[in-house]
Amino acid sequence: MSETSRVIKCADFRWEGVAVTGYKPDPVLFKDVTRQTIVGERAGEEAAGILTRYFEIAPGGYSTLERHEHRHVVIVLHGRGTVRLGERTHDLAPYDAVYVAPHAVHQFRAASAEPLGFVCVVERVRDKPVPVAETETGG
Amino acid sequence: MSETSRVIKCADFRWEGVAVTGYKPDPVLFKDVTRQTIVGERAGEEAAGILTRYFEIAPGGYSTLERHEHRHVVIVLHGRGTVRLGERTHDLAPYDAVYVAPHAVHQFRAASAEPLGFVCVVERVRDKPVPVAETETGG
Repeated sequence: MSETSRVIKCADFRWEGVAVTGYKPDPVLFKDVTRQTIVGERAGEEAAGILTRYFEIAPGGYSTLERHEHRHVVIVLHGRGTVRLGERTHDLAPYDAVYVAPHAVHQFRAASAEPLGFVCVVERVRDKPVPVAETETGG
Repeated sequence: MSETSRVIKCADFRWEGVAVTGYKPDPVLFKDVTRQTIVGERAGEEAAGILTRYFEIAPGGYSTLERHEHRHVVIVLHGRGTVRLGERTHDLAPYDAVYVAPHAVHQFRAASAEPLGFVCVVERVRDKPVPVAETETGG
């Protein structure tokens, strides 16, 4: 398939033609996270340098506490939660942006009574995340 | 300044510490568009490969009809409008995504009674947009 422009319609935070998948194979280090890759994985888009993903964390859930060299740019679309960046934890509300710099320890959590849904943009060529222990900080 | 992780809080589609600027120097080819670069232009972020910008088009306004080699990934945050991609025009509503492939002629328009606010992600290293005439299509 050639690389073509397109609109990907959204309804209830599900994008048309985009599969909702698990977050990572490891079931222990995170809780209740789903992933949709909105743009960048379709046939014909292999040359695009950017992947645009949407993650949704159910109430009380969280992503893996991890670090990696590649950067994250996150825009919250709905819900409430927090992000841990190094030793600090910040509240998140819709449209807040998060920049995760190289090697920063980070973790996203949904509030106990609300989901947290956010777009996370990364460069296609990137290193593999490394889980870190709760006691480790930095970045 | 070193490259550090951070949260950029948002209130009413204005991000903390981010300047609201004009869209382009040319005042003729577009109407009522503002730009905020949320992530990627701050000191210390020069190595980041991605720029994350927010554009807001006032009711009845529009961006330049243009083409370029670099790709756009757009996520609508609020309002209503349309995007022209080549010869076709598509309605846009919140959270719809748009992928603008290389060299596609494109233009965003707000609805007559609503603004259109969207995040637009690009690779930092990119070519300069070329305005095109109304009669030209493609992509």
